[in-house]
Amino acid sequence: MDHQQHAAAALRTQEVLRHLAATRQAAHGRLMDFLRIPSVSAQPAHAGDCRAAAEWAARDLQAMGFTATLCETAGHPVVLAEHPGPASPGLADDVPHLLYYGHYDVQPAEPLELWTSPPFDPVVADGRNGARIVARGAVDDKGQVSMWLEALRAWHEVGGGVPVRVTVVLEGEEEVGSVNLAGFLTEHREKLAAADVAVVSDTGMWDIDTPAITTRLRGLVYVEVRLQAASRDLHSGLFGGSALNPINALTRILGELHDADGRVTLPGFYDDVDEVSAAQAAQWERLGFDEGAFLAEIGLSAPSGEAGVPALHRLWARPTADINGIWGGYQGAGAKTVIAAAAGAKLSFRLVARQDPQRILDIFRTWLAERTPPGARIETEVFGIAPGFEVSADSPWVTAARRILGEEYGREAVLIGSGGSIPVVESFGRILGLDTLLMGFGLSDDQVHSPNEKFDIRCLDHGTNAHARFLGAVASGR
Amino acid sequence: MDHQQHAAAALRTQEVLRHLAATRQAAHGRLMDFLRIPSVSAQPAHAGDCRAAAEWAARDLQAMGFTATLCETAGHPVVLAEHPGPASPGLADDVPHLLYYGHYDVQPAEPLELWTSPPFDPVVADGRNGARIVARGAVDDKGQVSMWLEALRAWHEVGGGVPVRVTVVLEGEEEVGSVNLAGFLTEHREKLAAADVAVVSDTGMWDIDTPAITTRLRGLVYVEVRLQAASRDLHSGLFGGSALNPINALTRILGELHDADGRVTLPGFYDDVDEVSAAQAAQWERLGFDEGAFLAEIGLSAPSGEAGVPALHRLWARPTADINGIWGGYQGAGAKTVIAAAAGAKLSFRLVARQDPQRILDIFRTWLAERTPPGARIETEVFGIAPGFEVSADSPWVTAARRILGEEYGREAVLIGSGGSIPVVESFGRILGLDTLLMGFGLSDDQVHSPNEKFDIRCLDHGTNAHARFLGAVASGR
Repeated sequence: MDHQQHAAAALRTQEVLRHLAATRQAAHGRLMDFLRIPSVSAQPAHAGDCRAAAEWAARDLQAMGFTATLCETAGHPVVLAEHPGPASPGLADDVPHLLYYGHYDVQPAEPLELWTSPPFDPVVADGRNGARIVARGAVDDKGQVSMWLEALRAWHEVGGGVPVRVTVVLEGEEEVGSVNLAGFLTEHREKLAAADVAVVSDTGMWDIDTPAITTRLRGLVYVEVRLQAASRDLHSGLFGGSALNPINALTRILGELHDADGRVTLPGFYDDVDEVSAAQAAQWERLGFDEGAFLAEIGLSAPSGEAGVPALHRLWARPTADINGIWGGYQGAGAKTVIAAAAGAKLSFRLVARQDPQRILDIFRTWLAERTPPGARIETEVFGIAPGFEVSADSPWVTAARRILGEEYGREAVLIGSGGSIPVVESFGRILGLDTLLMGFGLSDDQVHSPNEKFDIRCLDHGTNAHARFLGAVASGR
Repeated sequence: MDHQQHAAAALRTQEVLRHLAATRQAAHGRLMDFLRIPSVSAQPAHAGDCRAAAEWAARDLQAMGFTATLCETAGHPVVLAEHPGPASPGLADDVPHLLYYGHYDVQPAEPLELWTSPPFDPVVADGRNGARIVARGAVDDKGQVSMWLEALRAWHEVGGGVPVRVTVVLEGEEEVGSVNLAGFLTEHREKLAAADVAVVSDTGMWDIDTPAITTRLRGLVYVEVRLQAASRDLHSGLFGGSALNPINALTRILGELHDADGRVTLPGFYDDVDEVSAAQAAQWERLGFDEGAFLAEIGLSAPSGEAGVPALHRLWARPTADINGIWGGYQGAGAKTVIAAAAGAKLSFRLVARQDPQRILDIFRTWLAERTPPGARIETEVFGIAPGFEVSADSPWVTAARRILGEEYGREAVLIGSGGSIPVVESFGRILGLDTLLMGFGLSDDQVHSPNEKFDIRCLDHGTNAHARFLGAVASGR
């Protein structure tokens, strides 16, 4: 694309942004309609509402020139929609192909009594960042989905049409573990793998003024450990000193999981953990993250984790081991002098990009076996295994997203991490061979999964503009 | 007492034994009634049942000529009953005065699903030693209490009446650390200290054919530890690596409680632990205790505890530390990626004669405080504290008991230890100045504190006879 074409594309983008500005009220109205559908995927009573939300989105996509169908799964349907891109046949072969992913399902709204307005009757309320939409799903994920829907609509309605090929995958089970998504992706692999990149808006900004691209997610190995000792519970007086106590044994084993510096002691655990680049470290340093304030909000006075490692590195770029649950023996009131027959724990390892979760699991199992005391039996059960994710800062999609976010906000976009997992990102890589661009507009006070979930309209509108700019930028090869 | 009187006493004892043999079924039926009362002292919902058990026992004692009252405490009531001894005034001044102690409360029955019959619906089942009674409390301690109740009843019903002065103290909080008993003993000290010796049946035989007197008991410090971290549960992805995980911290602390040789690491823990005398060690050696078989019965293939220490020493003459319960975070099915706000554990230290339990508790608290991570708060709550016990093999009561046990069983009684605690024994010494005779008839497979607790009827009947013989023996000065 030559200079003249770039200039034309830039003009079209400006036209689209003007159109968006002129039609803001209608766009908000459509989001409100979407939010009124109580598509709670976890609650069987809302199965019909989930389907209604899928149909709503499919109709909306059809109205802007997509072919859109509901693909049935063992659970709630997936909306699969496609747009061929520009009508001009010459261009269509060359334009990028974007795979937009989002989810139309929402978390349960309970406890209802803590909502200041009904969760499925969205209202615009005032907040510290101006007007906000309050409803279940306002930001997670209907509000963020509506940003790229409205950006696509604006391109559709303005001369020139949608400027790239687009495939949309809108699932209805993200809030219940995306249990049927991998099967869906595998079934439609050929078609979906033709895309160049997946675009997802289900993450957050650094703060209200600072746009962000999430380039790192931690993976997960979640495993339950059960240690069996005697065949029955024992009297601690009569057997103490001779019979193995499984809680003594389990705490002794798990107590060795970290060293005095908070590092995980599994041999080779850090082998494939890359150092954060100096440039990335410097950028994070400039963010001025206040870990003291972060922890004070949850009642903690001191940080935990690896000694001498900066906070954002510990949260985004370092693996962890956390015992998520533990049990054994008598947990009731008062005293019971028992030596339990068994004890158990649930643990999760958060992993970073190059760590192989299966290798970590194997290392952990070997480590457990080496520590199993004579007479005891240790069993493990795996409840989750997914690698970490890191997308290169040099990726053309990240580069384009940084630039258009800078243009939209007049401020440099930062590359951040998230300590949590987004399993679909791993599925896109593993099943489709696609990288994922995580460009999200949520804020940390959005009350995601909690009562009074909200989305600041300032974030919504900037995010919609950003998606419109992104379409223009990638269409013109910038 | 001259030869003729001795001969008369022996005749009366034979008459009592014949009466016991003739009324066995009724005696067993009374025990079944006692066992049907779910007097679980640890569970507030069973407070009324505890009182009902106390009332049941008081009525039973009244029926055999005792004055019996319920003495209120801050917890469950104590049954205090008295019998003046023989009606003949001349004799009454000279006869011995025995203080019988037992407890009507029982351990919680949980886990209920492991019982083969309802814990409070006693049944007679077949076992390897013949018929057995299966119920919570069958042996600990209702069944053993019933032995001396029935022996007293038989003496009451047979010509001559109860041949000694008797005071009964039946408490309802033994399974929760006898927290109010010391106060009760102090309040009634003058009356209770007039007894010559305390007689307790809450211990075991060496085996089904070998009667035993327990001359050592371990003491106890039972303490709950709660570690509080954040003010709420946290998402382990978003906070892992920064927020303190209280389960990680608690396992790390408690995992240090023992060294690689199984010794407790609290500084000074073994300071006041005496070596077992060579004579006692030799006697225990002769018992030919088979620890492998002892452990195989409970499904264990290897011993635990202090390396290089003989088994009976580890069980009877060495202190221990056992975690009796632990909890924290998610214990349900599947995965929940949570960092809990708090975690807790219940621990007990079994102590030997000269160890000061308060000192051990202080050492433990200091040790915990030194290990409390920044930002955490550790609280402890004590549910039991009692020193260990040792009685001289030369005591006249031990001598008399050895003889009548030999007569009942046709086999020499042995002097053993018990790893369990009977805090009241320490209280009898400290508060009342009384020695305690521990003559018990439980077996190691009685499932004490476990599902399917049982008492072999052979033990029950021999024990009842032994108590009847003991009354006759001490009444006649033998």
